[in-house]
Amino acid sequence: MQENLLEIFYKNEGKYVSSEEITSTLDLNLEELKDEIEELEKEGYVFDFSTNLGYRLKESSPKLLPYEIKRGLETDYFGQEIHYYAEVDSTNNVAKKLAEQGAEEGSMVIAETQSRGRGRRGKKWLSPEGGIWITTILRPHISPADAPKLTLMTGVAVAKTLINEYGLDVGIKWPNDILLGEKKVCGILTEANAKFNLVDYIVVGIGIDANVDTDIFPSELHYRATSLKEELGEEVDRVKLVQNLSKIFEETYEQFKAGNFPDILNDWRKLSKTIGSYVEVRKRMGRIVRGEAVGITKNGTLILELDDKNLRKIVSGECIHLNE
Amino acid sequence: MQENLLEIFYKNEGKYVSSEEITSTLDLNLEELKDEIEELEKEGYVFDFSTNLGYRLKESSPKLLPYEIKRGLETDYFGQEIHYYAEVDSTNNVAKKLAEQGAEEGSMVIAETQSRGRGRRGKKWLSPEGGIWITTILRPHISPADAPKLTLMTGVAVAKTLINEYGLDVGIKWPNDILLGEKKVCGILTEANAKFNLVDYIVVGIGIDANVDTDIFPSELHYRATSLKEELGEEVDRVKLVQNLSKIFEETYEQFKAGNFPDILNDWRKLSKTIGSYVEVRKRMGRIVRGEAVGITKNGTLILELDDKNLRKIVSGECIHLNE
Repeated sequence: MQENLLEIFYKNEGKYVSSEEITSTLDLNLEELKDEIEELEKEGYVFDFSTNLGYRLKESSPKLLPYEIKRGLETDYFGQEIHYYAEVDSTNNVAKKLAEQGAEEGSMVIAETQSRGRGRRGKKWLSPEGGIWITTILRPHISPADAPKLTLMTGVAVAKTLINEYGLDVGIKWPNDILLGEKKVCGILTEANAKFNLVDYIVVGIGIDANVDTDIFPSELHYRATSLKEELGEEVDRVKLVQNLSKIFEETYEQFKAGNFPDILNDWRKLSKTIGSYVEVRKRMGRIVRGEAVGITKNGTLILELDDKNLRKIVSGECIHLNE
Repeated sequence: MQENLLEIFYKNEGKYVSSEEITSTLDLNLEELKDEIEELEKEGYVFDFSTNLGYRLKESSPKLLPYEIKRGLETDYFGQEIHYYAEVDSTNNVAKKLAEQGAEEGSMVIAETQSRGRGRRGKKWLSPEGGIWITTILRPHISPADAPKLTLMTGVAVAKTLINEYGLDVGIKWPNDILLGEKKVCGILTEANAKFNLVDYIVVGIGIDANVDTDIFPSELHYRATSLKEELGEEVDRVKLVQNLSKIFEETYEQFKAGNFPDILNDWRKLSKTIGSYVEVRKRMGRIVRGEAVGITKNGTLILELDDKNLRKIVSGECIHLNE
C-alpha cells in the first residue's frame, strides 16, 4: 500500500495530488490515507498538505529503504533482493545466515547501523547512522584460494563508484581500504564459506562512511579516517550511491566471472596508493616489515623491496603508508 | 630572408599578397623574390601565384624545419636551439658531439633520416623519411646510477604526448618502448656521459614512426611494429607533434628536477603494459627469464614472479610480452 501511495507522488513529481484522486485510485477512505501518510512520515518522508490542493511529496526518506533503492536500480541481480534492517549485529553475519538458507547471488543485507560491525583481523568497526553498511552474497565457482581476488575486485568497484559519482581523489590502500587523499573512507570485509574445496558462498561486506559525522570518531582516528560528508562539505544521496555501487559492482563481478581478473587487477594497480609508497606492514605476533611497495602479484600478494634491497612477498597484514 | 618572407605569408593566412607589397617590405626586386619563392618550394612549401593578385602560401613544408617548429613552441628551453639535418648517421652521435662542445640543456638534434640509427643493445634502428628522429641534450645534476630514471621519464613524456594528441591506445613496454595496442611505434635510447661520478650530459634519442609507411618494414617486424600513419589512417602533422612533445617533455623533466620522480614513476606504472603481463626477458649471453611482471622498483628495475613463484629482479634485458 505504501509503495502504491509513493508511486502516485513520484508520478506527480513535485506537484500536489488531491486527496480525492489518491483515495479513489487506492480505494481508501480519507482517514486511512491520513494514517498511511503518517506511516511514511515516520519513515522520514516529508509532505506538504493543503486543504484545497491535497498532498505533495516534499522530501524522500533519507533511509536506505529497499523500495527507494530498487526504483532506480540498473542491475540484473545485484540488490534485486534486499534484506533491510534498522540495526543488526553485523550485516556479514546476517548475510551468512541467509546464504546458508539458500539466498540467491546478488542478494544484499543493508542496515542503518551495526551494533557489532567488524573489520579485517577481527577489529571493531564503528557503524553509526549515516553510513552505508551493506553485505552482498556471491556464489562464484572458484576455489577458496581465489577468494582474495574478490576482495581486490570489490575495492576496485567501490573506488570506481566514488570517482564516478563524486570525482574525489580516491585511492586504494592494500589490500582494499578505500582512501580519500590519505584518509580511509571505506572498509571491505570478505568472508568465504567452502564445501569440498569449492566456494559455496562469499559474503562481501562494504562499509562506507557516507554521511557520518567525523566528530564521533575517536581522536586517534581523526588523522586517518574521514567521511564523504566531511570531504564534500555536504550530505550525499545514499540511495543513489547504493544504486551506482550495485551497478558497478555487478559489472566488475561479471568481468571477474568472464575471466578478466587481469584487467581488474590492472585497474587496482592504477587506483593503488600503496604501490610506490614506503610502507610498514604489521603482521601477526607483532612482527613488522618495512619497505617500498613495488608491486602486487596476480593473487593479490604485495611485494616489498626492503631496505637491504631484497624482495619480500606479503600475503596478509595491516599496511600503513609511511611518509618518508 | 626566407623567414621574413614566410612571416608575411603567415600574417596574411590563406590570402594572396601582391608582389609589390612583398618586395617593398623586404627591399627586394621581383627577380630576387622569385628566387626566394623557388628556394622555399625546394624546401617543400607550396604557393599559388596569380599575375594580378601575387603569391599565396598554400601548404607549409612537411619537413621538420626549425623555423616551423619554433613558431608554435611553448617551451622555455626544450627545442629553443635546434640543429637540423636532412641526414645524419645518428642524432645521438651528433648530439654527443654538440654536448661535448658545450651545447645548452634542451638543445635538440633533428634529422629527416638517419643512416645508422641505433636502438638499445646496439641494435640497428630503421630511420626512414616520415619518422621523427630527435635527440635532446640534458644536463641534470645526478649520479650516473640515476640515469635510468630519465629513460622511464622520457617514456612517460612520449606516451602522454601521443595520448594527448591522438587519444590512441598508448602503452609502455618496459623499459621504455611506446606501444600502440601491442605494436611498437617509438623507441628511446638514452646515453649518459659522466665526469667525477656526476652526469656531465645525457642525450635522449626519441624515434617515432610517425608518417612511416609500414610496407618498408621487414616482414618479421610487421606484427610488432606500426606507425602513427598506419594506426590513424592519415598522416600526422609532425611539426605539431614535435612542438607538443617538447612541451610535455620539458614539463616532465622539470617535474623530475623538482624531485617528483615518484609521481613520474606512478604515471609510468599506469601507462605500463608490461606490469601484469607474462613476459620473456632476453638477457645477454642468450639467457632467458620468463615470468609474470608484477612490479617495478623506484630505480626502474622490473620484478618478475617466476613460474616457481620466486621473485626475480631484472635490471636490463629485452622484454617480450607473451600472450598466455
